Amino acid sequence: MLGTIIHGPRDIRLEERPDPTIVLPTDAIVRTVAACVCGSDLWRYRGIADVPRPTPIGHEYVGIVEAVGSDVTSVAPGQFVVGGFLTSDNTCPVCKTGAHANCQNGTGYDGCQAELIRVQNADGTLLATPEQPDEELVPSLLALSDVMCTGWHAAVSADVRPGSTVVVVGDGAVGLSGVLAASQLGAERIISMSRHADRQAIAREFGATDIVAERGDAGIEAIRELTGGIGADSVLECVGTAESVDQALRSARPGGMVGWVGVPHVTDLPQEHMFWRNVGLRGGPAPVRAYLPDLLQRVWDGHIEPGKVFDITLPLAEVAEAYAAMDERRAIKALLLP
Amino acid sequence: MLGTIIHGPRDIRLEERPDPTIVLPTDAIVRTVAACVCGSDLWRYRGIADVPRPTPIGHEYVGIVEAVGSDVTSVAPGQFVVGGFLTSDNTCPVCKTGAHANCQNGTGYDGCQAELIRVQNADGTLLATPEQPDEELVPSLLALSDVMCTGWHAAVSADVRPGSTVVVVGDGAVGLSGVLAASQLGAERIISMSRHADRQAIAREFGATDIVAERGDAGIEAIRELTGGIGADSVLECVGTAESVDQALRSARPGGMVGWVGVPHVTDLPQEHMFWRNVGLRGGPAPVRAYLPDLLQRVWDGHIEPGKVFDITLPLAEVAEAYAAMDERRAIKALLLP
Repeated sequence: MLGTIIHGPRDIRLEERPDPTIVLPTDAIVRTVAACVCGSDLWRYRGIADVPRPTPIGHEYVGIVEAVGSDVTSVAPGQFVVGGFLTSDNTCPVCKTGAHANCQNGTGYDGCQAELIRVQNADGTLLATPEQPDEELVPSLLALSDVMCTGWHAAVSADVRPGSTVVVVGDGAVGLSGVLAASQLGAERIISMSRHADRQAIAREFGATDIVAERGDAGIEAIRELTGGIGADSVLECVGTAESVDQALRSARPGGMVGWVGVPHVTDLPQEHMFWRNVGLRGGPAPVRAYLPDLLQRVWDGHIEPGKVFDITLPLAEVAEAYAAMDERRAIKALLLP
Repeated sequence: MLGTIIHGPRDIRLEERPDPTIVLPTDAIVRTVAACVCGSDLWRYRGIADVPRPTPIGHEYVGIVEAVGSDVTSVAPGQFVVGGFLTSDNTCPVCKTGAHANCQNGTGYDGCQAELIRVQNADGTLLATPEQPDEELVPSLLALSDVMCTGWHAAVSADVRPGSTVVVVGDGAVGLSGVLAASQLGAERIISMSRHADRQAIAREFGATDIVAERGDAGIEAIRELTGGIGADSVLECVGTAESVDQALRSARPGGMVGWVGVPHVTDLPQEHMFWRNVGLRGGPAPVRAYLPDLLQRVWDGHIEPGKVFDITLPLAEVAEAYAAMDERRAIKALLLP
């Protein structure tokens, strides 16, 4: 089969690889219908995170079950499935609390930007759609594999509830998904911090009531003006840099909550913006399986269309161009078709 | 009147001071019935926090209203009142969200270890008891001025709910109050980290189901064993040192929550124990007025007896001995009678 390998900064290659096989009785093999490139993949692409050796890459996918191990009972060959960016058994004590991203038996993948994928913990990871989806539903189902659940996790972690005022820091696919999540959770005012017209348009479509283009102190001031002078109840931190974490903490009102899901590239947290202002911080990798049943139903029923974050579709053969387009901000998020 | 002044490390003096007067129409003057020494006062007593000049000290009190300004409507001379360690107007946009410790018009005090106290924002700060309390109720009412509300804030911030497993880091008056709060909020298992027999006894009385005397890695291991191998749903951080914050974050299960109320003597937070484990952190100074109506009723009805944290009672004249007793850990918390 063909699979994507990152060899180093800006060196993405689609290569012939051995077909994955069932190794454990809890495995499934999925034939990819669509995959995509994650903002977090770009950390390695840009050389910010190390690539010590050529490594299969990609962790988002939807597809058709090709084969299952002897212990798998909840999905069967031929079904269309969505899986999260980490596998989870959905039965361990940690999964039982809803923290599936930290499953005691969880694993990653050996590269999902590929024609075939080995999915460990298949029963606890894959969710089948009620029937084969129409083609136009595929991007939104794919978005559930990571960005939509991650945006949802930011909103849940930030304690968004009916009537909340919300700030979303970051206008990438996760930030936009966070806007959609806040809207679905009943937020009254949703302020998207964005400087790009195309992303602002999607944010509006997803439910943003206001756009703030400024950053730093000017951004804080703009947020204050929109929130009765005090800051937002909930802030979704969807970037992960020291600047964006600072922006998020300072955008919250006293007693407010920041949900952070941007992989943090900050070594320590500025507690001076937290304790004395009673601003909390919660989040991490999203427990996809915890949210998947609810969100898949919302997509299936046409209530949400998170697939709108994909603004470029390429054949898997052009995976290198997908990375380049996202790196150069020519695309928000690239969908790949094998 | 007589009031306590801190002149420098270990230099506490009761001195003649001018009687406080009504300055603003929203002020009240309270004649102190009981006051106390706070763990946070000890930071200055020990020379860890600066004392640049002789400073009136103390921020916990109950007393009888002596006089009120012309705008004060909710309390009247002769009433027995409890007030929080910071004043709040209970009407500003921040107070309306419940974050009274960050009131836009909030203030501190000019020393409450004194015979008379000027209370700014009297309507938004003071709560009168239904009638004059019996003498034995006074310590528990006094505890509401800070430690009980602070322990409650830790439990609320840590998201304690019916059935939760809870760890309390710190066995001072706030930590013990946190145990009581967790118990009132329906926690199923409450683990007090304590190395002192007398404090362990109060923790048990307040609802602790388990005691862990170990700290550091051994403490974490003991917590794991008591929590099905994963850590606690909620952790109350009631100390504020780098070590205790670390202990608290590592005692939480993946997806768990730490409520921190110990005045932090840490410059930065170790995010490596937070993001990847999905452990959140929330808290700060307690919004006393937000909790006071509920907690005062619980004390009045005899459902809780937070005053048990006072294990020494001294006349105000012996305020220096009260500090010494707490500093040397001869006492958990000292009650002062003018």
